[in-house]
Amino acid sequence: MLSINAERLRQNIEALSQIGRKSDQGIYRIAFSDADMEARSWLQQQIEQAGLECYQDGAANIHARLGWREDVASVITGSHIDSVPGGGHLDGALGVMAGLECLHRLKELDIPLKRPLEAISFSDEEGRFGGIFGSSALCGRLTPKAIHAAQDLKGISISEAMAEQGLNAMDALSAARPPESMHAFVELHIEQGPVLEHQQLHLGAVDAIAGLFKWNIRFIGTAAHAGAAPMNLRQDAFQGVAEFSTELERILEEHGSPRSVATIGRIELSPGAANVVPSMAEFSLDVRDTDELTLQALADAMRRAMSAIARRRQLMFEFDILSELTPVKCDGYIIQAIEGVARSLGINSTRMASGAVHDTQVMANSTRAGLIFIPSKDGCSHSPAEWSDWQDIVNGSNVLLNTLYQLANDS
Amino acid sequence: MLSINAERLRQNIEALSQIGRKSDQGIYRIAFSDADMEARSWLQQQIEQAGLECYQDGAANIHARLGWREDVASVITGSHIDSVPGGGHLDGALGVMAGLECLHRLKELDIPLKRPLEAISFSDEEGRFGGIFGSSALCGRLTPKAIHAAQDLKGISISEAMAEQGLNAMDALSAARPPESMHAFVELHIEQGPVLEHQQLHLGAVDAIAGLFKWNIRFIGTAAHAGAAPMNLRQDAFQGVAEFSTELERILEEHGSPRSVATIGRIELSPGAANVVPSMAEFSLDVRDTDELTLQALADAMRRAMSAIARRRQLMFEFDILSELTPVKCDGYIIQAIEGVARSLGINSTRMASGAVHDTQVMANSTRAGLIFIPSKDGCSHSPAEWSDWQDIVNGSNVLLNTLYQLANDS
Repeated sequence: MLSINAERLRQNIEALSQIGRKSDQGIYRIAFSDADMEARSWLQQQIEQAGLECYQDGAANIHARLGWREDVASVITGSHIDSVPGGGHLDGALGVMAGLECLHRLKELDIPLKRPLEAISFSDEEGRFGGIFGSSALCGRLTPKAIHAAQDLKGISISEAMAEQGLNAMDALSAARPPESMHAFVELHIEQGPVLEHQQLHLGAVDAIAGLFKWNIRFIGTAAHAGAAPMNLRQDAFQGVAEFSTELERILEEHGSPRSVATIGRIELSPGAANVVPSMAEFSLDVRDTDELTLQALADAMRRAMSAIARRRQLMFEFDILSELTPVKCDGYIIQAIEGVARSLGINSTRMASGAVHDTQVMANSTRAGLIFIPSKDGCSHSPAEWSDWQDIVNGSNVLLNTLYQLANDS
Repeated sequence: MLSINAERLRQNIEALSQIGRKSDQGIYRIAFSDADMEARSWLQQQIEQAGLECYQDGAANIHARLGWREDVASVITGSHIDSVPGGGHLDGALGVMAGLECLHRLKELDIPLKRPLEAISFSDEEGRFGGIFGSSALCGRLTPKAIHAAQDLKGISISEAMAEQGLNAMDALSAARPPESMHAFVELHIEQGPVLEHQQLHLGAVDAIAGLFKWNIRFIGTAAHAGAAPMNLRQDAFQGVAEFSTELERILEEHGSPRSVATIGRIELSPGAANVVPSMAEFSLDVRDTDELTLQALADAMRRAMSAIARRRQLMFEFDILSELTPVKCDGYIIQAIEGVARSLGINSTRMASGAVHDTQVMANSTRAGLIFIPSKDGCSHSPAEWSDWQDIVNGSNVLLNTLYQLANDS
């Protein structure tokens, strides 16, 4: 089996982690910020120093290329170097640094490859402007209207933000690649969840990435004096939400799969005083599963449960759909390739779902795709406390290297 | 039976309701604001025009007196003319205007009375500086330390606010009256709840005023990615609160009385994003009952339930006591007097609890006390939509008049 240069990878991860770092508050490499641009320049230097071809497409995705030929479909790896505000040093960065290391290693070993290899750093995966921007551009899934509408929480449009860095957002439309130019896509990423650590396993071969629906829901009752209104004469909006929340588990068991998850992460009560029965509760509901029909069944069951609770408690309820995302399956051949490599390297692995969104979710619609997870300490991510054992990073990178090599030479 | 002058009462209620009114946003007669001071001046004029003696004590409580004698314990009625921000025209104002009308009517009928009568408008009942200030002063329940510490939500102290109106807050200590100077206290107030309306009754003889405990509670779990964390590996702080909330009804049934109520009116989640499992939920719990032992049993049961939920869900929980108030009983003789008068006047009445705090709660610790409720439309109060039928206002005032008359002449 082939091996990466672990010391070089370590140095690169460390060097990148210094860009945009705010002492103990974590990393601030928000898409198209100055820190993101600094990281991009640094990455381009590393690509050139590795003797690889460097290419930037219209979406400002940065490609490292090895053995590039227009007429042969390439094997692609990639992730992102932008971060959430106060993020960790591995989310996205691991996939880009490991991808670069794989191409660098294959180049210096001078191993013959049937297909070109690419390692891509995708723009705005994290969502300053909605997320998965670069991979969506590459797969031709952007429209001028969507680009025009995209803006961050401060109301700055992606066009303004990119223009300030000398880039033209509309050029992202030109980044679209025909599916036949891509042979396969494989991403290495930290799990960002507790499953591998909990099962004491060191690698996950992701077989599906969850789709989701995200609703903003309002239960509406009647405000009343906390002392003067007897329990049986109340229309307490919060009690409605509480009852619905405790039904979530039953709904997941009855209508979902073992992979289904549901989260209420945000709630606001009106008028919001300790001595007033709440007249309104507005809350978020985020539901995910890897199967589209299951997601649909969950949405139906959630609606029925809310409707029954509202009727019984004499509340009104209404909801807006904030977002919907279709689940995707990873490619069976690539999953087996990843598992085969892991077995050969003596790494305990499992098949698992990804509950979080990744660039792979987009790429899987245009080419066959795979996603490799390594364990996250305490399942923690989007935080300066994000951590993975060094041995897991090396193992994951070696699995990526040998999987890419295999895909670049298969028939 | 004696009758009030209903037309005069209507004119006075209407005149007072114009002071501090902000068009359709309700009444803003916050304690010791300019509007409150204007209402006080107007009230003093009305007392003098009625030919009653007007007296202002150190707590700025305004007394109307009829047949005042230092050496004979007086029969007192009273309520307050300060309001919450955006309040209605009857909360407090009804009790003061009806009390004044009762004394006015007894004076013009020139009926002999064994005891002096007083109608008092108490300062800051509503709570700009904590509430029930004037009645606490009258009953000698204030301390220099408490007066010094009292401040409003903007950080203005009661000393500053009173000084600005030419008053000295420390003078409130001199308002204390010996219990033996008081023969009885009766207050007329709107119910501020839906019970009378729901039962189609027109008068409530309150037999007890609920005590309460108010806690600020924190459930603490672990933040996690809404997609990447499986349900069984979560420590979701909000799910803990939701489960506790749905247990409230069971706890009230098992450990409380039919009068027990519990309210969660405020909750805040951290970090509070739709796609993050909440690591902390901070919420208020307001629990009331008219019996002290029952309140204690409820507090114990609430703690046990939270503790069990936290243990099972691997959460931590902690709570601060925001306030505690002891329940008080109304006087059996006065309750029977109110019921007897109501029966004679052909008014359907019931015995009931008061879940809300009133000046009567304080007065009942110093003298025997009674509290009369009339129905509130839709149970609504602390709102411009506060409303009671005119006939109920007249009936309630006539019950107050005859009850005061009876107490002023009993043996």
